[in-house]
Amino acid sequence: MLQFSNNNSFNISMKDKLQKYYKTLAELKSLEGISNLLEWDQEAVMPQSSVEARADKVAIIGKLMHEKSVELDHVNLVNELSDNRDQLDPIDQRSVEVTKTELEKETKLPTEFVEEFSKNKSLSQQAWYEAKMKEDFSIFLPYLEKMFEYTKQYANYVDPTKPIYDVLLDGYEEGMTTENLKVIFSDLKNNLKEILPQIKTQPSNEVFQNKDFKKHITKELIEELTAKVGFDYSRGVLGEVHHPFETKISTNDTRINTRYSELELQTSITGAIHELGHGLYEQNIDPKYAHTSLDQGVSLGIHESQSRMLENMVGRGKAFCTYAKEVLQKYYPIYKDVSVDSLVNDLNIVKPSFIRIEADEVTYNMHIILRFETELDLLNGKLEVKDLPEYWNAKMKDLLGIVPTKVSEGCLQDVHWSMALIGYFPTYTLGNLNAGQLWNSFTTKNPNYEKEFSQGNFSSYFNYFKTNVWTHGTFHKPAELIKQVTGEELNSKYFVEYLRKKYIL
Amino acid sequence: MLQFSNNNSFNISMKDKLQKYYKTLAELKSLEGISNLLEWDQEAVMPQSSVEARADKVAIIGKLMHEKSVELDHVNLVNELSDNRDQLDPIDQRSVEVTKTELEKETKLPTEFVEEFSKNKSLSQQAWYEAKMKEDFSIFLPYLEKMFEYTKQYANYVDPTKPIYDVLLDGYEEGMTTENLKVIFSDLKNNLKEILPQIKTQPSNEVFQNKDFKKHITKELIEELTAKVGFDYSRGVLGEVHHPFETKISTNDTRINTRYSELELQTSITGAIHELGHGLYEQNIDPKYAHTSLDQGVSLGIHESQSRMLENMVGRGKAFCTYAKEVLQKYYPIYKDVSVDSLVNDLNIVKPSFIRIEADEVTYNMHIILRFETELDLLNGKLEVKDLPEYWNAKMKDLLGIVPTKVSEGCLQDVHWSMALIGYFPTYTLGNLNAGQLWNSFTTKNPNYEKEFSQGNFSSYFNYFKTNVWTHGTFHKPAELIKQVTGEELNSKYFVEYLRKKYIL
Repeated sequence: MLQFSNNNSFNISMKDKLQKYYKTLAELKSLEGISNLLEWDQEAVMPQSSVEARADKVAIIGKLMHEKSVELDHVNLVNELSDNRDQLDPIDQRSVEVTKTELEKETKLPTEFVEEFSKNKSLSQQAWYEAKMKEDFSIFLPYLEKMFEYTKQYANYVDPTKPIYDVLLDGYEEGMTTENLKVIFSDLKNNLKEILPQIKTQPSNEVFQNKDFKKHITKELIEELTAKVGFDYSRGVLGEVHHPFETKISTNDTRINTRYSELELQTSITGAIHELGHGLYEQNIDPKYAHTSLDQGVSLGIHESQSRMLENMVGRGKAFCTYAKEVLQKYYPIYKDVSVDSLVNDLNIVKPSFIRIEADEVTYNMHIILRFETELDLLNGKLEVKDLPEYWNAKMKDLLGIVPTKVSEGCLQDVHWSMALIGYFPTYTLGNLNAGQLWNSFTTKNPNYEKEFSQGNFSSYFNYFKTNVWTHGTFHKPAELIKQVTGEELNSKYFVEYLRKKYIL
Repeated sequence: MLQFSNNNSFNISMKDKLQKYYKTLAELKSLEGISNLLEWDQEAVMPQSSVEARADKVAIIGKLMHEKSVELDHVNLVNELSDNRDQLDPIDQRSVEVTKTELEKETKLPTEFVEEFSKNKSLSQQAWYEAKMKEDFSIFLPYLEKMFEYTKQYANYVDPTKPIYDVLLDGYEEGMTTENLKVIFSDLKNNLKEILPQIKTQPSNEVFQNKDFKKHITKELIEELTAKVGFDYSRGVLGEVHHPFETKISTNDTRINTRYSELELQTSITGAIHELGHGLYEQNIDPKYAHTSLDQGVSLGIHESQSRMLENMVGRGKAFCTYAKEVLQKYYPIYKDVSVDSLVNDLNIVKPSFIRIEADEVTYNMHIILRFETELDLLNGKLEVKDLPEYWNAKMKDLLGIVPTKVSEGCLQDVHWSMALIGYFPTYTLGNLNAGQLWNSFTTKNPNYEKEFSQGNFSSYFNYFKTNVWTHGTFHKPAELIKQVTGEELNSKYFVEYLRKKYIL
């Protein structure tokens, strides 16, 4: 993978170094896959009584990964390769760049800080859980204060020259800045405030409720649907978990996971289709990246765009539902008497509600804007942690017109902050905005998609996103990728247009 | 766990050392559990296309385990604790003894030998598979020669003062010797030769065939049966695999695994009951051993006795079948018209056959005696590897009166020798003999067991073996344990009596 050069002996040495770098990378990837398997198995298979022993296993792999990645030899090697990057081909260059960025963070953090932070995250999670159960914010308060303090220290270690929130954002969405996000989100908020009062959806027909659904039948149904869209079961698994997620154990082992209920079918299917979006991304990265650090989706915001687009734009659309009805009635004959319009209606009810993860695709973004503005105010000192519950309720009133009566339905609903995942929430809405923009680009270039989808033909979708997004892995930065596919910088216009067209016009 | 001593400062130092030893042991156990999970998942969940990436993961964990266990600090610590074993309490003493025995083997083998042997095992397995598929022994011949050569070298490294086969046996069955085994097996062979011609079982009624069995129903059926016998599903899992096995990921995570077929029910159930025997053993080891090296069954021969006894003595008996019929007809109403006697008949057909793993509980042991005598003759030079196929066929003729026409049904049927598992086969028959002797002890002391079993009450069985076998883990050596429970040294008398009573009288 080296470019030609007159200095042959130097080249050979660089080649050796590159090989050595990729050998360490392979070991780190093996350990990361093991860590992902330990976590997948914990959610999908393991008896809950084994949770402590599992934590020990996750911890030992984490320790081994950290030790291996900060080994002086490896760090020096990565720096040397980075210093001589003009001699590397573009793939090796980008792989070294990604590794170096990750390593710089790892090596800048003092070991004691990492251990203390990590220990406090565990304690904080426990306190959050207790506070939520007891509806008592004061239990969580001192821990949450610590989480924000540690986060500030973390950002200061990583890059004291940059605004804290920029450092945090960059960890999830390479290159994204607070200023950029403020502009995008403020525009989105104004539009949503205008759109929301105009939306009048019909009540549920309850076509997904109380039908005595059987797990093994629903599983087969989902396998048929997901395989039809393009999931490769010879390189993947459909697992059962309580909270749907997707994970990759190795290049040929991507796992999408959903939950089953005997009383309700919608969340099993929409959960699976959401994770399918993540799974298709991971399954279709160009194999030439398999040995590099580019064998994964490029950012949370782009990853989430693939799951949201499939779940919302595709999966809740009339064309998909026309096809899905055929599959539904094959496994559950009761659906013979259910119209496509009823399915579409029940999948697209818009109504302000307290819980983010249960929100529809319109109001969902208000939940995220609330969290984004809250995080900024907590970090810049405009808000003290102790005043969070009142602040939260006032924001809910402003953004969605409703006020929670319990902290478990308010500021304590999410686990994220207890794990110091700050700057993470915005990527969910970035996912929606990316999805809107990418969906516009796909539908513009594939005007027949509705007819195709309704017949169970998803090849235009699969091929478009495989070629334009999935295959590239982490090769392009998120902003580059969006510009390259859609011809524009990320903006909220297309997502807003999509909502207007779907719910108002 | 230290006993009192006047030398207080010395004691404190020993206590620290013991703690340090158990800390390393905990890490090694975590890694071993991870390795077991990687293998379980490969059989139960993983897409086959990911097999190479999985091998890398298994290899890296194996390497980390080896490196950690032979670290000089750890080796010195174990030796020091062993030298001062009189100051340790009996549990710590035995734990250190077991660790030291394992370590001595690991440290006596030169690293190059381990790597070369390991590489050749992989090649040999591939050659075995190809030879078996092509029915061509010559493909495997050079590899099998190497496996026996390496095995001799291995035994020589471990203990050059002992007969080779004694060294090998000791690795699977602590304390067992070739001479002891020769006496036991020769006695068993004579008895089987006398018994076999007298057995006249009836042909199958095919009550387990062609009934359109459904996996999810069979799984529920098996969960009910196994829970009734005593498997604790809050600390265990029933998995689906191609070749049934049992494994332990951690103290609270024991997994029994069976296979499912739509056409045939017997192997799903007998496979599960066999693995249940292993699973009950592992689930019921005294928790006080959890942090030590004693938290596992003591030997292959004792482990196999627990699976064989449950599968054959219990599971194929009339009392169990009386209860099982009720469960069968609950899940598959067709069994309302099947008599208990028909079930018992079809589970107990005795007939000489070529394939060991498909053999009945009587002829099975002839397959093992054949392999035992073959291994001895190959190691002592009476037989050359190239003459194995003819030798094998002559032995089959002598022991079972039948002659295979294909090597895949003869000397190439088992994978074991290609992996250098030599001295391993005898433990299967040791399992049967231990089972016969333990079963006699149980039935003598629990004369009402048949009535209880037929009503689905297995508490006498569960409690007897929990108290006398399972709880002890590796605390007693296998020979000690059998003597302690049955009052006699291991012998073939009880197993032979069991067969006579069941099949002839």
